[in-house]
Amino acid sequence: MNNIDGNSPIGFFDSGIGGLTVVRSVTNLLPNENIVYFGDTARVPYGSKSNSTVIEYSMEAANFLLKKNIKLLVVACNTASSVALETLQNNLPIPVIGMIEPGSDYALHTSQNKIIGVIGTYSTINNRAYSTRLHILDPNAKVYEKACPLFVPFAEEGLVDHEALRLVAAEYLSELKSKGIDTLVLGCTHYPTLKKIIQNEIGPEVTLIDSGTPAANIVEDYLLEKGLKNSSHLPGTQEFFVSDVPAKFKEIAERFLGKVISNIHKIDLEELIIQR
Amino acid sequence: MNNIDGNSPIGFFDSGIGGLTVVRSVTNLLPNENIVYFGDTARVPYGSKSNSTVIEYSMEAANFLLKKNIKLLVVACNTASSVALETLQNNLPIPVIGMIEPGSDYALHTSQNKIIGVIGTYSTINNRAYSTRLHILDPNAKVYEKACPLFVPFAEEGLVDHEALRLVAAEYLSELKSKGIDTLVLGCTHYPTLKKIIQNEIGPEVTLIDSGTPAANIVEDYLLEKGLKNSSHLPGTQEFFVSDVPAKFKEIAERFLGKVISNIHKIDLEELIIQR
Repeated sequence: MNNIDGNSPIGFFDSGIGGLTVVRSVTNLLPNENIVYFGDTARVPYGSKSNSTVIEYSMEAANFLLKKNIKLLVVACNTASSVALETLQNNLPIPVIGMIEPGSDYALHTSQNKIIGVIGTYSTINNRAYSTRLHILDPNAKVYEKACPLFVPFAEEGLVDHEALRLVAAEYLSELKSKGIDTLVLGCTHYPTLKKIIQNEIGPEVTLIDSGTPAANIVEDYLLEKGLKNSSHLPGTQEFFVSDVPAKFKEIAERFLGKVISNIHKIDLEELIIQR
Repeated sequence: MNNIDGNSPIGFFDSGIGGLTVVRSVTNLLPNENIVYFGDTARVPYGSKSNSTVIEYSMEAANFLLKKNIKLLVVACNTASSVALETLQNNLPIPVIGMIEPGSDYALHTSQNKIIGVIGTYSTINNRAYSTRLHILDPNAKVYEKACPLFVPFAEEGLVDHEALRLVAAEYLSELKSKGIDTLVLGCTHYPTLKKIIQNEIGPEVTLIDSGTPAANIVEDYLLEKGLKNSSHLPGTQEFFVSDVPAKFKEIAERFLGKVISNIHKIDLEELIIQR
């Protein structure tokens, strides 16, 4: 590992493109930081895979990014955060920030009645990642969780206004609605692109929490504390690595990131695999 | 490779569980055959990945099955069939049967007006796999193709009767309907589980073609011709290998196969990867 300084990039990884919504939040707050992103598009999605597989893939993604001399790793994927964060933190020589803690802390801070809903992939919900963290912070909080597996394919298709999505959302969210939640955690980095329909179905009185925003604040706090904030006044560089470049990738990625992407590199899976 | 005889198994592979609908068709016709199935559940889906990635994964799946001494390989995945069949046929020492030729031949045989619709994943449709084959067989056939990317997640969720699926199906199929097709190829092994809603939306006058049935006939013809049909009068053995065992896998797999599965083995990805 080379010397790390303010100019070193922040690393991000996700199973695919969802994590670009987190990059968007971080670069909005910290436009001068250099960014290296890895999306495991050859093996996406993680949310329907087993914990051991997600841990293995996450370690591989992290090792790839370490070689880019990153100063900090953001696990920009709720599934990987809920399953692999501890393994990553125990095995990596740099700090690792996941989605679960920032999102939970922010949700609890936002909620008035401490009745909080969480939506995510099967993996994130089955692992009870958010409710565990929320109950550590406030044992009296009431937390209701619901897996919404069809939200990711709708988001990737860009059918964010479709009546079929509205029906699916109404079904997924009806139980949470009946519980009187005042705060709903979007526990998957794809979901911010579906905010409008989710807000319509859950009702205007419920505040939606997108973990990208509080995660960006934690990134900034850490960099300031360690003197590792980039002091440049120029916009940071952004490099994107993916394990596959499927049809329409660029179009979808740009929708998630909110801007044009020029710097996409495909890497081979065998570069990634860690032989045991 | 050991000696191949009638008792040797037939190998099947798919990106995940969809290929079990093909196993179902083959074992209905050939109940005495031994079966080895590989589902690449750690890297599913293939339909939204690039051609080079799908070819790489397909070669790895085939090599894994070859070690099981299979007498014949069925590529029980339309995406892999449309992208990787030629590579597999050129590199494997046994015959390889895909989904495209059996489905195309059967569709053309079935159609009266030779106006044929094809639905499948992005990959299958973008590769024009079915229309290329159909036009070789009948240059005057009119072929209309449509990618239906949301059908796979709905099928895997088991939401086969949901109003949201009906809306999605109505949208996907409306253009095909307007073209006057009398035959519709279900160009993805997941789609047979959605037959009811597809038939309702496309109309009762259109015949649905499930490639599993004609593929099973071709398997039987080949085994008879080569004297490799299993002469046992006992039900064949069935072994299932997967690269991941996610939550609900068994439940979904049994819905696709139409019977209880007992013999599921998980293999590690590094067993699969071919180092270049």
